[in-house]
Amino acid sequence: MNKLLIVGSVAFDAIETPFGKTDKILGGAAPYIGLSASHFDIQTAIVSVVGEDFPQDYLDLLTARNIDISALEIVKGGKTFFWSGLYHNDLNSRDTLATELNVLGDFQPKVPENFKDADVVMLGNLHPLVQNSVIDQMAVQPKLIVLDTMNFWMDCALPELLAVMKKIDVITINDEEARQLSGEYSLVKAAAKIQTMGPKYVVIKKGEHGALLFHNTEVFFAPALPLEEVFDPTGAGDTFAGGFAGFITQSENISFENMKNAVIYGSNLASFSVEKFGTERMVSLTQEEVKARLKQFKLLTQFDIEI
Amino acid sequence: MNKLLIVGSVAFDAIETPFGKTDKILGGAAPYIGLSASHFDIQTAIVSVVGEDFPQDYLDLLTARNIDISALEIVKGGKTFFWSGLYHNDLNSRDTLATELNVLGDFQPKVPENFKDADVVMLGNLHPLVQNSVIDQMAVQPKLIVLDTMNFWMDCALPELLAVMKKIDVITINDEEARQLSGEYSLVKAAAKIQTMGPKYVVIKKGEHGALLFHNTEVFFAPALPLEEVFDPTGAGDTFAGGFAGFITQSENISFENMKNAVIYGSNLASFSVEKFGTERMVSLTQEEVKARLKQFKLLTQFDIEI
Repeated sequence: MNKLLIVGSVAFDAIETPFGKTDKILGGAAPYIGLSASHFDIQTAIVSVVGEDFPQDYLDLLTARNIDISALEIVKGGKTFFWSGLYHNDLNSRDTLATELNVLGDFQPKVPENFKDADVVMLGNLHPLVQNSVIDQMAVQPKLIVLDTMNFWMDCALPELLAVMKKIDVITINDEEARQLSGEYSLVKAAAKIQTMGPKYVVIKKGEHGALLFHNTEVFFAPALPLEEVFDPTGAGDTFAGGFAGFITQSENISFENMKNAVIYGSNLASFSVEKFGTERMVSLTQEEVKARLKQFKLLTQFDIEI
Repeated sequence: MNKLLIVGSVAFDAIETPFGKTDKILGGAAPYIGLSASHFDIQTAIVSVVGEDFPQDYLDLLTARNIDISALEIVKGGKTFFWSGLYHNDLNSRDTLATELNVLGDFQPKVPENFKDADVVMLGNLHPLVQNSVIDQMAVQPKLIVLDTMNFWMDCALPELLAVMKKIDVITINDEEARQLSGEYSLVKAAAKIQTMGPKYVVIKKGEHGALLFHNTEVFFAPALPLEEVFDPTGAGDTFAGGFAGFITQSENISFENMKNAVIYGSNLASFSVEKFGTERMVSLTQEEVKARLKQFKLLTQFDIEI
């Protein structure tokens, strides 16, 4: 079975949306990526760090989905990374109420021996130096390295981000971040410029407006599924990335044509993630539901004009 | 040949974008709709009104594209409707600098005898009473009536708008207008509610984020083609509507499956319209260019996941 290595935060999230609020629940990039990727027939491991306050239930939840957490370090006496956010009425914008890095501040990822030959590496949003250290630990060049990042690192660690970007294959960022990173307003121009910085593939996430995949002069668009209700957008981008990376790992095919399918899988899984608070929907999600919604994606996008 | 009747404003537009500005050029909904629809093998007529200041060149331009302008009234001593707008840097928002209704203020549309049996009627954005009077003049029930409107009429003539909506088949509005008209934030819920008001099909235009087509529980999404540069978005929505209506008129098929193709044709033609100021690009556009870009739309959206 092919291997996907996931590196990213594991967190407590406290979320408030117009539909309700949660106490501290399971959050962070790695669980969203991992739970999403767990819907594929692959071996998955998470490299991350939590504090002693991290409940066994959450560890069990990940293990139950066949995610290898032997490299999820538990720091004795430490506290788990905590994030709290308040979504506005349109769910497209949010205020961060709290960010307590705690044990994540000193995170030194250690790639387990049995994943140093992972086929695909998914680097969740973290300090670029941490992302870089993971790449350096790989014994075999992965078939594909996917990196997620955010505007915060463009502001505070741009040289380090640019350095790690030279070593990766795919970058996933949102539209505003693509504009900031490239200095170009047009997403076509932005993606072209970002490709000169290293990654051969650029995925631009536009939230409810879908996602664009760029490679050379090729471009593909995956819409977000129009939903009656978006309950909690937290983790949608990571769920998308997990679906993308998971599908590529399973299929062993990094052609642009197959990446189109990966982007659709990512959008598909993300469309479930936002239906409930946190990771709840991803845990209950069945293969039948995934398949049924893939059919919806076909109906949503496929047409038969003869040219 | 099937007939498409177009009713809408004919105007002088003065446009300023970050890329330049124009003096008074040909504008208004009807020319954009008509030039877009002129790319299909159909008979097209425009019902509208202009002043004596309207140049023969613009009339010739429409006639050269086989658009019947015998019902384009020219008011002696009157002045043509004038609109002036300034686009912001992102081209997604604009300020209206001037709106001088002039002869459009007293417009009484007269449907020509030979188009009272039109297969499709495209009602461009006008006062709902004017749109209604066109429907009342039809001798034969059209196969499809498409209506475009805007928030202005929701604010100032809502009862009249709701009345004409009961007589139409397809409404095209943008996302904010769909939310205003329905009181629902979710576009899925908004489209469902708008369908209870009359139109069986709801097209929600999202500008650079594409367009959604709703009918009962079915939904289809046409992306906007990602462009290196959008030069002037004026008339993109009308060009979209003209492509939609023109394709339906030509194909005589109002199934949901065929409407998907119509929405793609609309997006395709709109992607050209924004490449130059005003109607310039639509006038020079060739069938070969349209076909080549349809292929781009296929590459942009089609995937081959086996389910």
